[in-house]
Amino acid sequence: MNEKHLTSLQNPLIKEVVHLRDRQGREQTKKFLIEGYREILRATDGDWVIEQLFICPELFLGSNEHHLIDRNRKRGTEIITTSERVFHKMSYRDRPDGLLAIAPQKALMLKDLPLPKQKAPFFIVAEAIEKPGNLGTILRSSDAVGVDGLIVCDRCTDIYNPNVVRASVGTLFHVPTVEAGGEETLEWLRKHGIKILAATPSAKENFTEVDLRCPLAIAVGTEQLGLSERWMSQADLQVKIPMHGVADSLNVAMATTLLLYEVLRQRLNRPLA
Amino acid sequence: MNEKHLTSLQNPLIKEVVHLRDRQGREQTKKFLIEGYREILRATDGDWVIEQLFICPELFLGSNEHHLIDRNRKRGTEIITTSERVFHKMSYRDRPDGLLAIAPQKALMLKDLPLPKQKAPFFIVAEAIEKPGNLGTILRSSDAVGVDGLIVCDRCTDIYNPNVVRASVGTLFHVPTVEAGGEETLEWLRKHGIKILAATPSAKENFTEVDLRCPLAIAVGTEQLGLSERWMSQADLQVKIPMHGVADSLNVAMATTLLLYEVLRQRLNRPLA
Repeated sequence: MNEKHLTSLQNPLIKEVVHLRDRQGREQTKKFLIEGYREILRATDGDWVIEQLFICPELFLGSNEHHLIDRNRKRGTEIITTSERVFHKMSYRDRPDGLLAIAPQKALMLKDLPLPKQKAPFFIVAEAIEKPGNLGTILRSSDAVGVDGLIVCDRCTDIYNPNVVRASVGTLFHVPTVEAGGEETLEWLRKHGIKILAATPSAKENFTEVDLRCPLAIAVGTEQLGLSERWMSQADLQVKIPMHGVADSLNVAMATTLLLYEVLRQRLNRPLA
Repeated sequence: MNEKHLTSLQNPLIKEVVHLRDRQGREQTKKFLIEGYREILRATDGDWVIEQLFICPELFLGSNEHHLIDRNRKRGTEIITTSERVFHKMSYRDRPDGLLAIAPQKALMLKDLPLPKQKAPFFIVAEAIEKPGNLGTILRSSDAVGVDGLIVCDRCTDIYNPNVVRASVGTLFHVPTVEAGGEETLEWLRKHGIKILAATPSAKENFTEVDLRCPLAIAVGTEQLGLSERWMSQADLQVKIPMHGVADSLNVAMATTLLLYEVLRQRLNRPLA
């Protein structure tokens, strides 16, 4: 049995965990943190390897934690019980729920993305998103509509940032996610006959008025500047999201969610009752 | 001319500003903070009173700031120039842009909300939203579709929280926003023949399949628990948002934005090309 107890605030494992909050720590080790019951459950369900699972039973919120710990123990995960003080030091949450894991990153590449044959492929390209919360929320909405994959281009925030994992509520472990350069992504989409959709205020048609049932990649850009010229000029379809107020744009995660669900609406193809 | 220069970190005005970051400070004074060019511009455009405007020209990002300052000076706002050090102490942003204002709160009531006669009224009820970022984003999307008003019921976060102002990018100053109790809101909606729409996974029909062109209030609930039983049981229309992934819900601001834009789509009533 791999069981440890951790009560000293000087234990080097704590430093190792804290180090993974920073991009530098993640890049050096190729590992990342998964915190929270729901997130670790989805990683486990998705067969992601979990190397170490830190638990603090005093902080558990429910009664299913032990089953989840058992599942991971059987898969060879090292289980480390900590004191509350130690857990609070390792956690990056305000209200930790007593579960925190270290897992190796997966380095998926474009060629690893699934290309469905029975239906039109449906991808999302997120270019240079800055805020981890936005990227995580885009993942959550992408999961909800069942995209075939998310491609993060010219990344600003890495997908293993703890706040991406958190805002995605663990959907990161279900949506195939790739980090890739802009040029290679464009080439890959072209090669597979996937059309690029961009939202821009200068488009003539509303996003609900353009046929989005073809093989499609929705491309969205940074919070401040939107999609780069490279992607905008390559877009096969341009649509606008109507704006009837004083502001001239939506939050990027909102705009993305609208586009994602519009594709789903058109593909479900059920008219208004 | 009302012009002051502020360079001492001990000046009591700094404490006053910092105090307004907390709800307690806002409730005691009935004032709040508006930070940032875009936000202060929208408050000024919306004729909100600004009592004091702190400026730090070294931090300005553009060249339009002086015009905005002049407009406020002419309206009787006290303009206070500060040193960079003082401004950084007052600012709640990582990268302040040199503009921060103190303004009195408006205490709108249900009876102050506009009831359009030429079109079906369109409101949004946000019940007990916890995160200021979510409430601000809901405001931003509400502005974009042109709702007649936002009613915050049984508030958890107050609408004058600096992060609501920020996430709303100043649309708070354009969308009529009211804080009210649940019971009085239900009564008010009933009295004016406004139907209540709730999203719930147990609904039979998708949100894109139900006619939403009637006088309507979209009701959305907390991040964790969704809408309360009170509102769910009073809903005239129940719809579901399809979920095709591992997660069973969307972020509340995403779900709200989808519902808001679906109403707009149906009311614009233009079929798919």
